[in-house]
Amino acid sequence: MMQAAGQAFWLKRFNLERICEPVHMKSPITLTRIVKEDSMRNRTVLVLVLVALVALARVAGAEVDREKLLKEPGVYATFAVFKLGDQWSHMDKQAKAAAVEEVKRVFQMHADKVSVDTHLVRGLSEKADFFLRVHSKEMIDNQNFLVDFIGTSFGKALKNTDTFNGITKALNYVPKFPEDLKAELKTPPPQGSPYVVVVPIRKDADWWLMPQDVRTTLMKEHTDATVLYLKTIKRKLYHSSGLDDLDFITYFETAKLDDFNNLVTALMQVKENRHNKRFGEPVLLGTIRPLDEILEIIAR
Amino acid sequence: MMQAAGQAFWLKRFNLERICEPVHMKSPITLTRIVKEDSMRNRTVLVLVLVALVALARVAGAEVDREKLLKEPGVYATFAVFKLGDQWSHMDKQAKAAAVEEVKRVFQMHADKVSVDTHLVRGLSEKADFFLRVHSKEMIDNQNFLVDFIGTSFGKALKNTDTFNGITKALNYVPKFPEDLKAELKTPPPQGSPYVVVVPIRKDADWWLMPQDVRTTLMKEHTDATVLYLKTIKRKLYHSSGLDDLDFITYFETAKLDDFNNLVTALMQVKENRHNKRFGEPVLLGTIRPLDEILEIIAR
Amino acid sequence: MMQAAGQAFWLKRFNLERICEPVHMKSPITLTRIVKEDSMRNRTVLVLVLVALVALARVAGAEVDREKLLKEPGVYATFAVFKLGDQWSHMDKQAKAAAVEEVKRVFQMHADKVSVDTHLVRGLSEKADFFLRVHSKEMIDNQNFLVDFIGTSFGKALKNTDTFNGITKALNYVPKFPEDLKAELKTPPPQGSPYVVVVPIRKDADWWLMPQDVRTTLMKEHTDATVLYLKTIKRKLYHSSGLDDLDFITYFETAKLDDFNNLVTALMQVKENRHNKRFGEPVLLGTIRPLDEILEIIAR
Amino acid sequence: MMQAAGQAFWLKRFNLERICEPVHMKSPITLTRIVKEDSMRNRTVLVLVLVALVALARVAGAEVDREKLLKEPGVYATFAVFKLGDQWSHMDKQAKAAAVEEVKRVFQMHADKVSVDTHLVRGLSEKADFFLRVHSKEMIDNQNFLVDFIGTSFGKALKNTDTFNGITKALNYVPKFPEDLKAELKTPPPQGSPYVVVVPIRKDADWWLMPQDVRTTLMKEHTDATVLYLKTIKRKLYHSSGLDDLDFITYFETAKLDDFNNLVTALMQVKENRHNKRFGEPVLLGTIRPLDEILEIIAR
Amino acid sequence: MMQAAGQAFWLKRFNLERICEPVHMKSPITLTRIVKEDSMRNRTVLVLVLVALVALARVAGAEVDREKLLKEPGVYATFAVFKLGDQWSHMDKQAKAAAVEEVKRVFQMHADKVSVDTHLVRGLSEKADFFLRVHSKEMIDNQNFLVDFIGTSFGKALKNTDTFNGITKALNYVPKFPEDLKAELKTPPPQGSPYVVVVPIRKDADWWLMPQDVRTTLMKEHTDATVLYLKTIKRKLYHSSGLDDLDFITYFETAKLDDFNNLVTALMQVKENRHNKRFGEPVLLGTIRPLDEILEIIAR
Repeated sequence: MMQAAGQAFWLKRFNLERICEPVHMKSPITLTRIVKEDSMRNRTVLVLVLVALVALARVAGAEVDREKLLKEPGVYATFAVFKLGDQWSHMDKQAKAAAVEEVKRVFQMHADKVSVDTHLVRGLSEKADFFLRVHSKEMIDNQNFLVDFIGTSFGKALKNTDTFNGITKALNYVPKFPEDLKAELKTPPPQGSPYVVVVPIRKDADWWLMPQDVRTTLMKEHTDATVLYLKTIKRKLYHSSGLDDLDFITYFETAKLDDFNNLVTALMQVKENRHNKRFGEPVLLGTIRPLDEILEIIAR
Repeated sequence: MMQAAGQAFWLKRFNLERICEPVHMKSPITLTRIVKEDSMRNRTVLVLVLVALVALARVAGAEVDREKLLKEPGVYATFAVFKLGDQWSHMDKQAKAAAVEEVKRVFQMHADKVSVDTHLVRGLSEKADFFLRVHSKEMIDNQNFLVDFIGTSFGKALKNTDTFNGITKALNYVPKFPEDLKAELKTPPPQGSPYVVVVPIRKDADWWLMPQDVRTTLMKEHTDATVLYLKTIKRKLYHSSGLDDLDFITYFETAKLDDFNNLVTALMQVKENRHNKRFGEPVLLGTIRPLDEILEIIAR
Repeated sequence: MMQAAGQAFWLKRFNLERICEPVHMKSPITLTRIVKEDSMRNRTVLVLVLVALVALARVAGAEVDREKLLKEPGVYATFAVFKLGDQWSHMDKQAKAAAVEEVKRVFQMHADKVSVDTHLVRGLSEKADFFLRVHSKEMIDNQNFLVDFIGTSFGKALKNTDTFNGITKALNYVPKFPEDLKAELKTPPPQGSPYVVVVPIRKDADWWLMPQDVRTTLMKEHTDATVLYLKTIKRKLYHSSGLDDLDFITYFETAKLDDFNNLVTALMQVKENRHNKRFGEPVLLGTIRPLDEILEIIAR
Repeated sequence: MMQAAGQAFWLKRFNLERICEPVHMKSPITLTRIVKEDSMRNRTVLVLVLVALVALARVAGAEVDREKLLKEPGVYATFAVFKLGDQWSHMDKQAKAAAVEEVKRVFQMHADKVSVDTHLVRGLSEKADFFLRVHSKEMIDNQNFLVDFIGTSFGKALKNTDTFNGITKALNYVPKFPEDLKAELKTPPPQGSPYVVVVPIRKDADWWLMPQDVRTTLMKEHTDATVLYLKTIKRKLYHSSGLDDLDFITYFETAKLDDFNNLVTALMQVKENRHNKRFGEPVLLGTIRPLDEILEIIAR
Repeated sequence: MMQAAGQAFWLKRFNLERICEPVHMKSPITLTRIVKEDSMRNRTVLVLVLVALVALARVAGAEVDREKLLKEPGVYATFAVFKLGDQWSHMDKQAKAAAVEEVKRVFQMHADKVSVDTHLVRGLSEKADFFLRVHSKEMIDNQNFLVDFIGTSFGKALKNTDTFNGITKALNYVPKFPEDLKAELKTPPPQGSPYVVVVPIRKDADWWLMPQDVRTTLMKEHTDATVLYLKTIKRKLYHSSGLDDLDFITYFETAKLDDFNNLVTALMQVKENRHNKRFGEPVLLGTIRPLDEILEIIAR
């Protein structure tokens, strides 16, 4: 965990990255141009190879532990939501291809600090084309990755339509739940589901001013309503108060959207629902797809 | 219905499409350019003919059953609403004509998975020019169709101003209604009406927290108010909770907008109306028109 | 009134228009270009004369009866509000002049079906430059006119910022008012007033759930407050429930805005005002000006 | 005051202006171009001199009485708020200079009908760069001035972000206040203050439905809270009900923003504050600066 | 403190600046162009040196006392929030570099009047790329600085997405707190923290209408909840009523965002939270970074 010696910490985290960056990320673009405009091809190829080697070396053995990040408390998540702007269509095919490669390099470059999941929203919401779910041990690592992503030629053509920040925490109410419910909650969630839903939530003042045991009772009723769907719907919770205009980011994966519709309908029928000042707005419904596929679709 | 073996399911659905796509959809555009810029005309024509044959073969005998989709429960619907942006007017006549053909091919290509209805809104709402009502057995088929539609040259010139997702379900309250009302509800709806109205609806927490029988009583009062208009107004209901920032999408077709205004006024005078947190916003009023006509009007 | 044989009705209304249109509206533009780019001047002039003759022939004796439309119930009105976008200023003088003529032709072409009033808002509201108040016996005639208007070169440069749809109806509460109030309401309204105000209104659920006689009592109190201003302020009411996100469009003409401010202040002091969930937003204040003048100002 | 003979009134007001305009406002621009593109310099200079003479003649002795407009009831005010768009930066230096001169001419041309104050907002609000406070005896004079202002090359590059319309009236509650408070209110306000604040206000239905004497009591409490600041803060009130989506525009001038913050805090602590449905949104904080300075800053 | 002799004050403050400005800020740009387009290089270099000397002379010994500004009451703060627009990417590398230098000169030029802190938001909020926190003894100094900043080539490419104005004041409730709490509040805050959070706050009418001692009791409960975090979270408060659509701007610095999330959660559990009509919207989460770094990231 980060210590209060903030300035030193800051220099360490940030400057290291800055020093390495010009070599990794910007040169290749310039170099590509040299290939076309210049005749010093041999030398260029050599430099490109070196750049690739440095990038590989950096990533090798340094990949962040995704499984751990997705399980542990104290992990910071940033959901960055994007929609393609008009500018992109003015670029030619070659520039687009180079831009796509640049994006992949940024993902690679930050792979030792952040874990990034990619989701396609286009077609199922007017609000976005896709979103990135970024996890790391320090919020500034999320920011540094996203700053580099937004700074690419592709990133510059995007409109960042929404961003939600959160932190994972130890379970709050579950420890006080009855043993049989606790046992139910150990049902293994589904794997490899195609659909994703993100629902940002804000509670009202009455909710927060209730005694903890009253909230526990209400959350037990809420949790009872979810038991039926534990096998087909996977869920993850992030705390956002103070980090964003939200209290929680709720994240779901499923192969059965009819079950998900039934689950949400059931959750609206428990008393805790009276205290959701904001539920969605936007609900983001999409499909989980690898980066390459999303780039292929959006950056056509 | 989809099973929980999501990953496999996903690969099957999605990759098949991806493999076929480059041949069907992208080549013709590139080929058109070749015709103009190149002299290999004979060869090009041959390729074009082959592409057309493959497309035809794919569609033949594989058209999705529209009547069934419009009647059954468990069908996914996406209402995708669009407005033309400024970019379009910068294109020349020939490019516009090619873009329109590209759109028609996308519709054809997905005709085995999705059924699409087209509605013209321009002139009757500032929010949109037209909307597509897409039905299929899996939400991802709606997405794949819309991703391809948005990816066309015409689609790139559009602004996707609203999208509503829903699922059809078996009737919830009707089974408990008195027999005479049930009989009334069998009145055949009008056919071939020119006007369409879409009203998204969100209920308040009080609604969802009422016991089922209280809601049934309120819905009976609501349904009584509609009997007078069963002959002139056709209606369809979609459930959206969790799939969008809505609870229901209500869809109407009529030739008599004066009747529709009377119907809505009557529905505001029943107690269930107190629980509509959102009613419309937007109400989308338009006319049902074939794709060709909408393209002719919007893509001028 | 329209019958339920919607499909036939539809074909009749719409296709007739489509068949005539290419001759009336699109050719002249193309022809104008021929004049400049080609040497076949004599022939072109001949064609232009013919086009003008056809247009005249069509309008002659076929002008819609404006007085009747403005008085009768069952008439459909569309208020279409526009603001000029940035594109317009990039056009040269000649193209602008041609575009203005094209607009006038569209107005003429639809004169047998719709009656259109024009109002200048620029300077008195940031939301719009001008609005059209379109009346006809069928909503689709309003749409067809507006689709053609938006499809002109001038229309393409406009942003449609708001649209309100409504229908006129027989008086609802007045028949139950006391005779002396009824007599007062026969005061002839002012003619030729320069100012116009449009106030869209939405009532709350409590309003609609009151018994009719309670609403009549409240509307009598409301109407009493208007008597003082019957001589200087003319008023017209449209019903919008279900046709738009409104319940009523209220329309006023006056030469005395101080009186109008006093009238609205008086109306806020009657109990019915508690049930106005939306009053304005936007209030559109403008001046009644002929089409030519509005085009001269906006299309400079 | 305007009479009900609206049509005549209209023609008189409007057409006179139209007839004069082409000479005053549009020609110089065209002429400037002739100077550059043509060799007929001598003749051009002569015409320019004539245009200037006509303009001077029109203004001479006809300047509207600003002091009177700022004191009298029955005066119409329009607050027109603007922000510079992206287009402006694409113009060259010479075109910008010509555009600035065109703006000054429009101000001069309307000086016999409207009095205009200019305020710089840029830097202190994201919502605007500057606003004009326009006063005249008829709202249409405000509109005609603003239409001409928006129609200049500079005006076309602006986004009109907000417009508030109001009318001045005789004091409503003060006549019933105790004599000592009335005496206090005669404190002369500060002169030549640099800061300006505009706060649009909308009251709730409860406010308007209170009996006049209850409102007088509440307004006395409100006014008591302002006495301390009469020497350092100048205030002006406009009534807007029915002319805009507001009930009042409150306008302040001061050299002491700390006092103003204390005044507003005090006003939030009186019971009348419960009835402010809208207070600001936006609050516009700026500085009073002459037109030339604002043009120099914004039109750089 | 400013006196009521506003006009004189105004002239003094503003004109002095205007007189100096053309030499400092605009010439260098023009001069740079001369260097490239002209051959009078020697002379140009001389002028540049002179300009630099004048700038230095002006700044030397005149730097505003940042420590004092950050501690004293009666200091005006403007939070100006920006997002880069599409225009920037159309500029070439050299023009970008010149624009960045121009920004640095504007910062230097105003260093005797305003103290400016810089924060990077990009990646952690869709609403902004960065924000400036500007402090001075007079609001007009904030405005003059920001007007010059927005007037640079870089500034013209920015969208000013939010601006919050406030004033620092002596503590309001603390003097009445018990001695032990007062002692706790003397805990020295952390230094050199990397993260920054800005939360704008608006209270409801009930809050302001409570007697001062009731508010003191509620604020004591609020303050008790913060004690645990005094060591890791630094806080600053600005009063905004009347200067903006806010009552307070709360500003935080920390190295521990998990602590900050806990603090905000704790603050939502005290009764004063019921009176926060607006809390955030937007919450701005970012990192404190020097101007050079922010320019390097945003102006790439």
